[in-house]
Amino acid sequence: MTPQIIEAAAARLAGHVRQTPLLSSPFLDRIAGRRVLVKAECLQHTGSFKARGGWAAVSALDAAARARGVIAYSSGNHAQGVARAAASFGVPAVIVMPSDAPEPKIANTRALGAEVVLYDRATGDRDAIGAEIAQARGLTLVKPFDDAQVIAGQGTVGLELAAQAAAEGVTQADVLVPCGGGGLTAGVALALEARAPGLQVRPAEPEGFDDTARSLAAGRIVRNEARAGSLCDAILTPSPGEITFPIMARLCGPGLVVTEDEALRAMAAAFAHLRIVLEPGGAVALAAALFHAPAMTGNAVIAVASGGNVGADTFRMALDRAGDTP
Amino acid sequence: MTPQIIEAAAARLAGHVRQTPLLSSPFLDRIAGRRVLVKAECLQHTGSFKARGGWAAVSALDAAARARGVIAYSSGNHAQGVARAAASFGVPAVIVMPSDAPEPKIANTRALGAEVVLYDRATGDRDAIGAEIAQARGLTLVKPFDDAQVIAGQGTVGLELAAQAAAEGVTQADVLVPCGGGGLTAGVALALEARAPGLQVRPAEPEGFDDTARSLAAGRIVRNEARAGSLCDAILTPSPGEITFPIMARLCGPGLVVTEDEALRAMAAAFAHLRIVLEPGGAVALAAALFHAPAMTGNAVIAVASGGNVGADTFRMALDRAGDTP
Repeated sequence: MTPQIIEAAAARLAGHVRQTPLLSSPFLDRIAGRRVLVKAECLQHTGSFKARGGWAAVSALDAAARARGVIAYSSGNHAQGVARAAASFGVPAVIVMPSDAPEPKIANTRALGAEVVLYDRATGDRDAIGAEIAQARGLTLVKPFDDAQVIAGQGTVGLELAAQAAAEGVTQADVLVPCGGGGLTAGVALALEARAPGLQVRPAEPEGFDDTARSLAAGRIVRNEARAGSLCDAILTPSPGEITFPIMARLCGPGLVVTEDEALRAMAAAFAHLRIVLEPGGAVALAAALFHAPAMTGNAVIAVASGGNVGADTFRMALDRAGDTP
Repeated sequence: MTPQIIEAAAARLAGHVRQTPLLSSPFLDRIAGRRVLVKAECLQHTGSFKARGGWAAVSALDAAARARGVIAYSSGNHAQGVARAAASFGVPAVIVMPSDAPEPKIANTRALGAEVVLYDRATGDRDAIGAEIAQARGLTLVKPFDDAQVIAGQGTVGLELAAQAAAEGVTQADVLVPCGGGGLTAGVALALEARAPGLQVRPAEPEGFDDTARSLAAGRIVRNEARAGSLCDAILTPSPGEITFPIMARLCGPGLVVTEDEALRAMAAAFAHLRIVLEPGGAVALAAALFHAPAMTGNAVIAVASGGNVGADTFRMALDRAGDTP
């Protein structure tokens, strides 16, 4: 993949996705012991960066394929991104979702006009289910991360970030990115390689689902043992992708791994000091920035806050920790 | 007051306050029955639009007066706006706050470097307390709303809104603004008169504190009976100001009055569909947009979400209503 495919995606996305703000607070700087800049992708349409990859993939299809429709498998954010793009183009979308996905994500995907097919995350094989429906109906499968156009769409976060960080005077920093299959991480890394080489991408993951950190350390793709059982539902993937991993291996620094409690405390800090709503999986990079400060160097750190689709019950768990962080 | 004073404030504020995004969600459009655009001032530095007025006032002082320092009385948001500006200029700030102000607002004001003096909202006279300290220490009083520079600073919200609404193709709409003393409402109305005359400002207030709606209806300033006792602490003022009221009387449409429950439901809707954190007083305009649809005409409505400084306990009350709105 080259930076040109990201530039091309950015041109197709213009006017259809938001340029999200780069937020900051002196209170977060105090917690982290350095300047903290937060790229608030929770404010993106559909509540996560996935609106970018969904739009990039659907807009890249030839007209005939697009008219037949698209299918995606997703725990909820990619679902909404693809559903929104398909609805905007007026074409059908089928979304295969795990039955334990947060209720708002399922409801919102349906409300965006998609047909939702549920499966059991522990026993089902979403790839097989998706492939079967796709073949039966002539739908094009939009993979959640291991697809060049999807990676390019997510990479537009990196293009914005390069310009926004420069405007803040930040040209040397770790850029922490919540990492599931690596679409966002790889896309941002490619964009920053071209536009801001002093910004070093590092994946952030939840404990027990640190496949990318371990894969980077091992120099080859390794898989998670568990397939479910974390609040960070948005970024629970079996392993990094065949396309995303080589990009991450070439460009990313060591991965960071945070606890669920740290993710919830980062949500509480974002609530109190940035006034944004994050979901647990979207808060892991901020959690690393705030609570793993010794793992980083330099005067500034950038955290991508990748999504904010969270139910009230989970958000209450974060609010319960609102007093735990100075 | 003329639009030029707002333009001059905008020039002084450039680089020191954020241009906040204009957000939207198809789910909010569905609730309101028309297009809803939300100006997210909760994402402003210090968590409310008050960072604008504070900066405008402190930056407008002559150097000698500024060096002696400033004083303000505030339930919390103006406090933080003035404290931040004073700290940035390296001058002292004393803030007189009601003792029942939300704890995070008091703590954050102190953390921004200001000296906080508490008084009892039901029995104390904050104007008298403020005047006495100001005289004793040679401080300049920065009033919360009835000051031309403060109104000009808040009016920069209107300059941004005019451009952002035009970019969305919206040139005719009601613009609902949370209204305490009227600084934001009057400032935005002046800016829109000059830049987007098809956008009509209307103040939004909580039940029991609808002094501006009643004043506009009566054609003269009338006061609230109560002085405390609403969750909407940010916008509980005795009456509109001597400077702000004539501006509002000339430019604003009829006021809208919402219940506390509606404000909490608007907070829940903003949580679920915009992923932003609003405080009750900051949510009253969105509440009117969503739940008082028959009081408006046209295909679109703009709501200013003026602040997001809210404690976890109050936010839980909003989350409890997350299922109450479709």
